[in-house]
Amino acid sequence: MDSWVDGQPADVLSLKDRGLAYGDGLFETIAVRAGQPLLLERHLLRLAEGCSRLAIAADQALIRSELTAYASLLGEGVLKLILTRGDSQRGYAADPRAQPRRILQGNAPATYPAAHAEQGIRLFPCTTRLSEQPLLAGLKHLNRLEQVLARSEWQDSEHAEGLMLDLSGRVIEGVFSNLFLVRDGALFTADLSRCGVAGVMRAEILFQAASLGIPTEIADISLEQLQQADEVFVCNSVYGIWPVLACGALRWSAGPLTRKLQRIARTLLDA
Amino acid sequence: MDSWVDGQPADVLSLKDRGLAYGDGLFETIAVRAGQPLLLERHLLRLAEGCSRLAIAADQALIRSELTAYASLLGEGVLKLILTRGDSQRGYAADPRAQPRRILQGNAPATYPAAHAEQGIRLFPCTTRLSEQPLLAGLKHLNRLEQVLARSEWQDSEHAEGLMLDLSGRVIEGVFSNLFLVRDGALFTADLSRCGVAGVMRAEILFQAASLGIPTEIADISLEQLQQADEVFVCNSVYGIWPVLACGALRWSAGPLTRKLQRIARTLLDA
Repeated sequence: MDSWVDGQPADVLSLKDRGLAYGDGLFETIAVRAGQPLLLERHLLRLAEGCSRLAIAADQALIRSELTAYASLLGEGVLKLILTRGDSQRGYAADPRAQPRRILQGNAPATYPAAHAEQGIRLFPCTTRLSEQPLLAGLKHLNRLEQVLARSEWQDSEHAEGLMLDLSGRVIEGVFSNLFLVRDGALFTADLSRCGVAGVMRAEILFQAASLGIPTEIADISLEQLQQADEVFVCNSVYGIWPVLACGALRWSAGPLTRKLQRIARTLLDA
Repeated sequence: MDSWVDGQPADVLSLKDRGLAYGDGLFETIAVRAGQPLLLERHLLRLAEGCSRLAIAADQALIRSELTAYASLLGEGVLKLILTRGDSQRGYAADPRAQPRRILQGNAPATYPAAHAEQGIRLFPCTTRLSEQPLLAGLKHLNRLEQVLARSEWQDSEHAEGLMLDLSGRVIEGVFSNLFLVRDGALFTADLSRCGVAGVMRAEILFQAASLGIPTEIADISLEQLQQADEVFVCNSVYGIWPVLACGALRWSAGPLTRKLQRIARTLLDA
């Protein structure tokens, strides 16, 4: 399906766009089923939070209506929204009159092997570490060189995802996923106030777990805690939940809490 | 003057470009006088270093010849080169067959007030801190949200530049400049192995100072050391050198070593 730029079909972008010049913008990757953008409210919430923190004055109602209209035409697949601060002249100073730019791209449904969800995956232990930047932490912004470098560390198909630590050695997330661990029946995921992307599925899992009365904790996670976990899984809003069986020399089994949450995630993504 | 994309006049870019999606690329901003790209060898050297560290397999000879040809047509102004990893499908994994993309943009000569160089400037003390990421430190890559945020901290014309510290409180650089200080006849500039952009004019000044027998040191710089400096200046490859007179409550004078190096920088930029 054709991409849209500011609501019009287009396959190119102005060279003056600050998304290109500085990565000055945000994005959302949204699963679409039966013409519906899934977990739309959570995607819009994160986008609005990003706009607020980066001071990008985007029309949220317009974005919502375009996402809905585009998803309706796409039918089934993955919708990517890129929102940039718009055009500017040379230099970091933004033009206060610049209009934020909305780019919508439609892709075919993701085609991950069914075994990823059914049996589980291996994580590649990335040596690329996440830097700490509280001003940008949690946002799905366009400055993603760390993820590009981390993803370039493995080419084999043995590893479905990579594990990323921060520069202090804390366990943070996958390259394109968030990470959870289970210990003594409680659910843990990394504090993302210094780095990382606060995923929409992560937020949904925290909400669903709390609704089920499962204790949840957002905390710093050490490699030792990861090693001692009863279960480990990764998640995102496109594939749902994948159990993690291994990372380097570490081993886990796909356990009951992972399977319970996986069924819930699947229901959400089956719309 | 028209921009070029991969050697052809163009004012738009493929929406699939990874420069837009992830800031997956590098840039150089080059002063052009009398049809010549100034400090070209140093710009090419930094670009090649960036390509090596990001594993972008760009044709350096082709880039050189395009820069030279474009500058010749531009005549006078500022040439911006953006080099991206090229197009890719959705996802952080790069397509090994992707062709890096070359974007050349021509701008009019920079129009800074003459007083910046003649009398000196005030630095705005930015609260936006630089994160530490050794894998990217020194490179002029396209992930520049920290600079965007820092530059948004002041709108007045009293401040010509901003001072950026890293998250540990070290004095690193300006938003679009490198910073030097003079103490007891020696020249100091920040170690950029954890963060910062290793500017072309910074490299040239270090080289010129060493040639003149001026002691130079690349070191961690504290706010106390900045405060106690005899002279402070900022530099880049477009404007040369600006003496720094103030930053917040701190005060300095435009001193003799700053003036000596400023004359050399001016000669280099007068081609």
